[in-house]
Amino acid sequence: MSQQLRARLFQEIDSWTLIDPHTHINPHSPAATTLSDVLGYHYYTELAHSAGMPKQQIEEAGLDSKEKVGRLVRNLGPIENTIQYSWLIEMCQRFFGLKDDRLTTENWEQVYDRSASLMARPNYAQDVLKASRIESVFLTNDFDDALEGFDTNVYIPCLRTDELVFKMNHSSVQERLQKSTGISVMDLPSLRQALGAMFQRFVARGARACAISLPPNFSPRPVPASVADRALPELLRRKVSADSDSIHLMSLYVFWTLTELCAEYKLPFDLMIGVNRSVYLSGVHQGQDLYDSRVSLIQYRELFNAFPQVTFPISVLASVTNQELTSYSWIFPNVVTNGHWWYSNTPSYIEFDAAARLEAVPGTKHSTGSL
Amino acid sequence: MSQQLRARLFQEIDSWTLIDPHTHINPHSPAATTLSDVLGYHYYTELAHSAGMPKQQIEEAGLDSKEKVGRLVRNLGPIENTIQYSWLIEMCQRFFGLKDDRLTTENWEQVYDRSASLMARPNYAQDVLKASRIESVFLTNDFDDALEGFDTNVYIPCLRTDELVFKMNHSSVQERLQKSTGISVMDLPSLRQALGAMFQRFVARGARACAISLPPNFSPRPVPASVADRALPELLRRKVSADSDSIHLMSLYVFWTLTELCAEYKLPFDLMIGVNRSVYLSGVHQGQDLYDSRVSLIQYRELFNAFPQVTFPISVLASVTNQELTSYSWIFPNVVTNGHWWYSNTPSYIEFDAAARLEAVPGTKHSTGSL
Amino acid sequence: MSQQLRARLFQEIDSWTLIDPHTHINPHSPAATTLSDVLGYHYYTELAHSAGMPKQQIEEAGLDSKEKVGRLVRNLGPIENTIQYSWLIEMCQRFFGLKDDRLTTENWEQVYDRSASLMARPNYAQDVLKASRIESVFLTNDFDDALEGFDTNVYIPCLRTDELVFKMNHSSVQERLQKSTGISVMDLPSLRQALGAMFQRFVARGARACAISLPPNFSPRPVPASVADRALPELLRRKVSADSDSIHLMSLYVFWTLTELCAEYKLPFDLMIGVNRSVYLSGVHQGQDLYDSRVSLIQYRELFNAFPQVTFPISVLASVTNQELTSYSWIFPNVVTNGHWWYSNTPSYIEFDAAARLEAVPGTKHSTGSL
Repeated sequence: MSQQLRARLFQEIDSWTLIDPHTHINPHSPAATTLSDVLGYHYYTELAHSAGMPKQQIEEAGLDSKEKVGRLVRNLGPIENTIQYSWLIEMCQRFFGLKDDRLTTENWEQVYDRSASLMARPNYAQDVLKASRIESVFLTNDFDDALEGFDTNVYIPCLRTDELVFKMNHSSVQERLQKSTGISVMDLPSLRQALGAMFQRFVARGARACAISLPPNFSPRPVPASVADRALPELLRRKVSADSDSIHLMSLYVFWTLTELCAEYKLPFDLMIGVNRSVYLSGVHQGQDLYDSRVSLIQYRELFNAFPQVTFPISVLASVTNQELTSYSWIFPNVVTNGHWWYSNTPSYIEFDAAARLEAVPGTKHSTGSL
Repeated sequence: MSQQLRARLFQEIDSWTLIDPHTHINPHSPAATTLSDVLGYHYYTELAHSAGMPKQQIEEAGLDSKEKVGRLVRNLGPIENTIQYSWLIEMCQRFFGLKDDRLTTENWEQVYDRSASLMARPNYAQDVLKASRIESVFLTNDFDDALEGFDTNVYIPCLRTDELVFKMNHSSVQERLQKSTGISVMDLPSLRQALGAMFQRFVARGARACAISLPPNFSPRPVPASVADRALPELLRRKVSADSDSIHLMSLYVFWTLTELCAEYKLPFDLMIGVNRSVYLSGVHQGQDLYDSRVSLIQYRELFNAFPQVTFPISVLASVTNQELTSYSWIFPNVVTNGHWWYSNTPSYIEFDAAARLEAVPGTKHSTGSL
Repeated sequence: MSQQLRARLFQEIDSWTLIDPHTHINPHSPAATTLSDVLGYHYYTELAHSAGMPKQQIEEAGLDSKEKVGRLVRNLGPIENTIQYSWLIEMCQRFFGLKDDRLTTENWEQVYDRSASLMARPNYAQDVLKASRIESVFLTNDFDDALEGFDTNVYIPCLRTDELVFKMNHSSVQERLQKSTGISVMDLPSLRQALGAMFQRFVARGARACAISLPPNFSPRPVPASVADRALPELLRRKVSADSDSIHLMSLYVFWTLTELCAEYKLPFDLMIGVNRSVYLSGVHQGQDLYDSRVSLIQYRELFNAFPQVTFPISVLASVTNQELTSYSWIFPNVVTNGHWWYSNTPSYIEFDAAARLEAVPGTKHSTGSL
């Protein structure tokens, strides 16, 4: 991309007020309370770990947050050439008075202390949103979240459904569904009733989207009630020992039912397509997932045709799926593009960011999140 | 791409006189007769439909062409940021006297009327070709096309073979093959004879290529005559009810036979690889196809080795297959790259186009077409 | 990429002293002895062949090296627009006194003669390394290579293991393994012993890496000894007639064993992922391989988890796998990126190279090699 075009695009984007469609913000404590909440985010811990810092040093039980930042700072050397590092420096300069262009063993404590005192101010969260020109953010709410005690105009509830689709055979999920809806799932009608009650409660409390992350091999299709009728009892009775066929069939059945409920309750269904969980078993917290770029939106053909009234904001994980996403959203009125995942912060995507910064007033417009 | 390099490439390409290797031009009426032929093209109807315009408004039976343009113009707002829109504006400015930089409810009628009167001029088609510096275009001819009544030096016949390969079990195809060649297909020898007669007729009337579009899962290989011998009667007898194995085997058999005839009649075989038909069932005319980017030219390994004497100009649909195409054409002397499909007019490809326009005299060099 | 960023990156990279991690250099005769060694390299013969030069003209038995260069020069016309050609010209200008900007039937003989006399100088190889700022190069050594008679600080031994993994059923491989280690493979323990002896010898003689190229469908996993116990005798007894299941199981078994030995002998294991061999059967020497871009590093998930103590420098073949490689190396501490293969010298990668040259003093920093 030429410098001219890049500058023009950056200037335009930089002028926007944003609504972040996907975050893991805790609405009861939306802002970081120490620098450890920033530097302890998986963007940084993964890189430090991958560059040689032992996991034990990062995730030691009972580790003091200041000590944690100190340890991480001593391991930032190998990641100074990353875009994540440049975001960190930009944040520290803009918000916490860092004067240097890197965080060192000499200067980090001062930044830590200054940030802690700023973060303790009563309006800190609102100030960050304002400085970042972020109007509101979508949350990631468990299906049994109480959804109480926060301003849903700023912190917009979003019903996250991974557990219902992929872990319906866990007793904890079955129990939480029963408890949060007051409905005992015993058969398909009561399952539908429970999921419906959940949608009703979410919508009543301001939910604006339903969301799910999906593995690359997922291919939604309707499962006949007669088939699901035999699979559900297996999950209810045998829980984690249920046979894998029944688990898979119920995944498809629940996913399809959730989509029907999106239609009924007029919620968009955010699909985040492509993640394999727990690929790197010894990874740090949230740093274990990876992907298989061999995925195609053709897997969603039947879904997109069956639900023209449901909007599907779609995120794909691998850059090689971007053209498909653009094409599918070009053709299907109900398919819309919905931004990148964090995996896309790889070098090929950094140029725009890094170079654009040279020509713009530093800010923290980057809206990111893990799934 | 830097602005300098882009400008240099554009200037070079812009100076060329072109032969368009793939169009759906009707040689008996090669030019648009009203602006509806331009704005009614699926590039625009798909986008308008995807952005919310009901299909019924676009494809209403008996819709007057001026009314159709009026309706579409009122729905262009959401697509003003597309390269297709910029082509439209460029065309209207260059050819039809549009002074503004967008088409609005205020100015479209004037453009429509002016274009209609220009299009009615006797040499309009030739003038457009000349202004576009297009020397000649390849057609897309049905296998039973009469191929008469036009200048085959400008409108070059090209034998399109999708129906023969994928719909040989349709009685209409069987009948049209019989009628156009005078040969009744009863067994493999008469099938070969009919296809040979078709090639002979096409070559005699100036055909310069054979062409086909192929789904992503197609993987050509020779089928033994002993096997095809059992499959063909099934297609001849049971038509659309023929079993899918026999249909698939005859697809492979006919495709391989067509390639043998390309060798015999010294025609290149244009392969347009990757399209799935009718993915979006409610799409507008020609706006129902999409792709699966998981395709590889390794599927054509046996074909490329078996026919060193046949040139295969290849188009791939997904941008992620471009490197494979370049590599295969680098290694195989008989494989040549043959341009993009329309799906590639996605944002990642627009930059060159959009930015290059800033530095060049507007023109209509863009040679595009749907498959 | 903007010209500014490109220039900045090129300048930085151009200042480095390099260690080439992968070459096919013969350490006993590391430099070209005539221009035929350069122009006869498969980068050039493939392109000339693909552009129409008959293979027979290139690979005629007993062909004189000067005559070979003459023939190739007469066929360079169609490849003058390639990056490979620009490298050739740069080399001839920098090292062999070429004044023109192309190699022609008029000037090539002078360049040939001048290069022959320069190449005959005693320190030519060292001079080229110095002028190229290459400190040392990794070799590609057969598992039974004597590894004697050269400076292993400059020409670093690297144990290439393709034959052991994929051709253990060939009697020649079995015999060479026996001969080079003094151990007769009769069962799994003696196989392990032989491979161990091979590692010991390589490490003792300065080997710094183990390496292998792998087809796109390879997916390593441990094979239980009880299973391999039944497969190995089949390979030992029936050689090339061994059943394909046993061959495949032993491929997996040997690969996993080699990785265990990398752990034991503290060698990194270079994985070059994605090549299909002999795809174009009539290709020139080393010009027969191609790839299937449908490959994912998820296939190596179990391997990366099982061997945290082994570093895996990974090369992928298709550009579309680059993001996966970057992501996997971001998450897995033991996965590191290891450069491109020659297939990546396709147009999309050339821009940087070609444009950067305009702004830099010509040199021969390009470190390339075939696998």
